Amino acid sequence: MGNPTNTSLSEKELAEAQRELRSWTYDRGRRALYRRIEMPDFPQAMAFMVRVAIEAEKLDHHPEWSNVYNRVDVWLTTHNVQGVSDRDLAMARHINTIIGD
Amino acid sequence: MGNPTNTSLSEKELAEAQRELRSWTYDRGRRALYRRIEMPDFPQAMAFMVRVAIEAEKLDHHPEWSNVYNRVDVWLTTHNVQGVSDRDLAMARHINTIIGD
Amino acid sequence: MGNPTNTSLSEKELAEAQRELRSWTYDRGRRALYRRIEMPDFPQAMAFMVRVAIEAEKLDHHPEWSNVYNRVDVWLTTHNVQGVSDRDLAMARHINTIIGD
Amino acid sequence: MGNPTNTSLSEKELAEAQRELRSWTYDRGRRALYRRIEMPDFPQAMAFMVRVAIEAEKLDHHPEWSNVYNRVDVWLTTHNVQGVSDRDLAMARHINTIIGD
Repeated sequence: MGNPTNTSLSEKELAEAQRELRSWTYDRGRRALYRRIEMPDFPQAMAFMVRVAIEAEKLDHHPEWSNVYNRVDVWLTTHNVQGVSDRDLAMARHINTIIGD
Repeated sequence: MGNPTNTSLSEKELAEAQRELRSWTYDRGRRALYRRIEMPDFPQAMAFMVRVAIEAEKLDHHPEWSNVYNRVDVWLTTHNVQGVSDRDLAMARHINTIIGD
Repeated sequence: MGNPTNTSLSEKELAEAQRELRSWTYDRGRRALYRRIEMPDFPQAMAFMVRVAIEAEKLDHHPEWSNVYNRVDVWLTTHNVQGVSDRDLAMARHINTIIGD
Repeated sequence: MGNPTNTSLSEKELAEAQRELRSWTYDRGRRALYRRIEMPDFPQAMAFMVRVAIEAEKLDHHPEWSNVYNRVDVWLTTHNVQGVSDRDLAMARHINTIIGD
């Protein structure tokens, strides 16, 4: 995925990304990669969010996410390109390392 | 607000609650108290969420919330009464003690 | 371990506890159960602490712990009995469910 | 404090730092800046730690700290210089912006 992070992924690149990141879908309305994550309980959902948050701030690339009890819905999008970029793929891969594919 | 926590607030009680909790609005669609919170930055947004989360788990009453960068949107509703209960008022007051009215 | 939580464990009970909780040792100076935990990295150490913290506040029984990078040292003791109580055993078991025995 | 971060502060620089950072003391045994922080309660102590942790990981400079209930003891030292460096001063200032001088 050699495109620079200042452009959004092409349709073709998005399709490739989805073949790799099967637990993520493309939310066309939000132009974002989306994954619903269900942890066993609320403390684990919060621990997950803290772990991702620490990484997100380091990368200066923050998820849009919502939480209800044990569930975390995550959208990854890059505001300044108004779409999905390589940085979102990197974050999706990072989240997969935490909770599995 | 002497109603038991196993019933939702009446229209009259909701109106009273909103006079007290002016930074919260009633989201009719979600039958929830709603407040948008803007913290100075992402680390403070996460610290706020952790602080509320610890209290929420203790009370066994969890918010529905979403976060984008420094912003946290919070909805307080009580699932088993399908509406706002005294427990949501208590949580709203607790959040107000953290970030102000 | 049927002793009430308002007394510390006897020597015999402590010995039994250590047979069960092999990753914990008794720190005689601090009258505490002690375990050193090494997580893969700092974000995971913090996520671990947040998860335990949420449980600790709910139980109103808080660990004494220190953190350096990926390492968390945990002491479990019960102040009002000046020693290890059933509540510490419960917390040690809870921590073991998170990170393994 | 123009010294590079790959050396520890001189005695003179340490003395200057302590005049600026009055709530911090120099722990000679640990060659670290030290501050005891007392938050109003445990959730606030944890929220404080999470906020600092996010910043620490971003700066790749992590505190040594311990927590008991509402209390957080923080030591700032730089391992590869075996003493206090400019990075510790920066972290001490950051912590002061959170909880006051």
